[in-house]
Amino acid sequence: MKPLGNLPSLEAVIQELGKLPGIGPKSATGLGYHLVSLPPERVKRLAELLQVLPDRIGYCSACGMLTESDPCVFCREPSRDRSLLCVVEESLDALSIEKSGAFNGLYHVLGGTLSPLDGVGPAELRVKELLERLKSDEIKEVILATNPSVEGEATASYLRNLIADLGSGIQLSRFARGLPIGGDLVYTDEETLALALQTRKPMEGE
Amino acid sequence: MKPLGNLPSLEAVIQELGKLPGIGPKSATGLGYHLVSLPPERVKRLAELLQVLPDRIGYCSACGMLTESDPCVFCREPSRDRSLLCVVEESLDALSIEKSGAFNGLYHVLGGTLSPLDGVGPAELRVKELLERLKSDEIKEVILATNPSVEGEATASYLRNLIADLGSGIQLSRFARGLPIGGDLVYTDEETLALALQTRKPMEGE
Repeated sequence: MKPLGNLPSLEAVIQELGKLPGIGPKSATGLGYHLVSLPPERVKRLAELLQVLPDRIGYCSACGMLTESDPCVFCREPSRDRSLLCVVEESLDALSIEKSGAFNGLYHVLGGTLSPLDGVGPAELRVKELLERLKSDEIKEVILATNPSVEGEATASYLRNLIADLGSGIQLSRFARGLPIGGDLVYTDEETLALALQTRKPMEGE
Repeated sequence: MKPLGNLPSLEAVIQELGKLPGIGPKSATGLGYHLVSLPPERVKRLAELLQVLPDRIGYCSACGMLTESDPCVFCREPSRDRSLLCVVEESLDALSIEKSGAFNGLYHVLGGTLSPLDGVGPAELRVKELLERLKSDEIKEVILATNPSVEGEATASYLRNLIADLGSGIQLSRFARGLPIGGDLVYTDEETLALALQTRKPMEGE
């Protein structure tokens, strides 16, 4: 909503909130008014947390993950399988994989995908660091877990060629594709449906 | 998502964001990760704005509106019609009415609706202040602009009786009801539809 000049401090907060992803002008206004209805301590607590956030957060020197300690908890944990490396676009992707509970290897965060039109080439991603790790570490398998998008696929292809060229015999893999669990045929996009049909598996059991 | 211990500062921010209305755990996580991807100055600017917010915002001593100056811009503006008073639940309601551009009187913010089950009686709202204004000010019409909800209607009824008892000959009114402009019959709730039908108006022109 347009500022009315009555509440410049609140309007400044609303404007900043409205710049965040997924928060439109109406939500930002609602959030702003909610903030002034909260006990002052709660707003100040959020302010203090935000104030220190940028100084506390950095990147793991080994895997590129967002972390407050270097190396990060994943790289530091001795029980993790150091022969298995999962390459992801962003730290948040690793968090999602971690939540699945199905992975116990190490991560490597690229920091995005190749996107020549946006000026993102291999030098803008942590590709050199990935190759260094593959040369020196005891990695046997690399899961190229970039997103199943055009950019994610292109990045995975590029990395596959690069890693194959190393001639190190490292196994490369990519997440399986198909219908999501709990998905609905009607709401599945045509490409996924076609792929799921073409790569159908024999039913087990009897 | 469950905290992983890697980013306690970020997780604290995500937790606070997740307590705000309309921000679920997934949105809060996304927002948190977006915040750490921003230039530190932007996050710190938001932090500073939030830090001063609770100290800067107060209530207008005349109308109860959230404001940074007392009296607020509405009460202070000499061009506004002081014979017309619009009673709203919250400051944000007044902002919406103001945005419509159709109102040029003064406001009175109740600070909520009567809600006996939540312990909100007339003493918890700015009802006494409203009656004081009606006795002393030059008000000729009061628009009871509480929401068209059960609580809003009950509060409007209560105020109507109270103001009628003053015997001051003040005109009372309430917003018209019906189909919203650009609305769709199919998506209109039954009560609104029934009311719009019962209170239908003869078509003008020919």
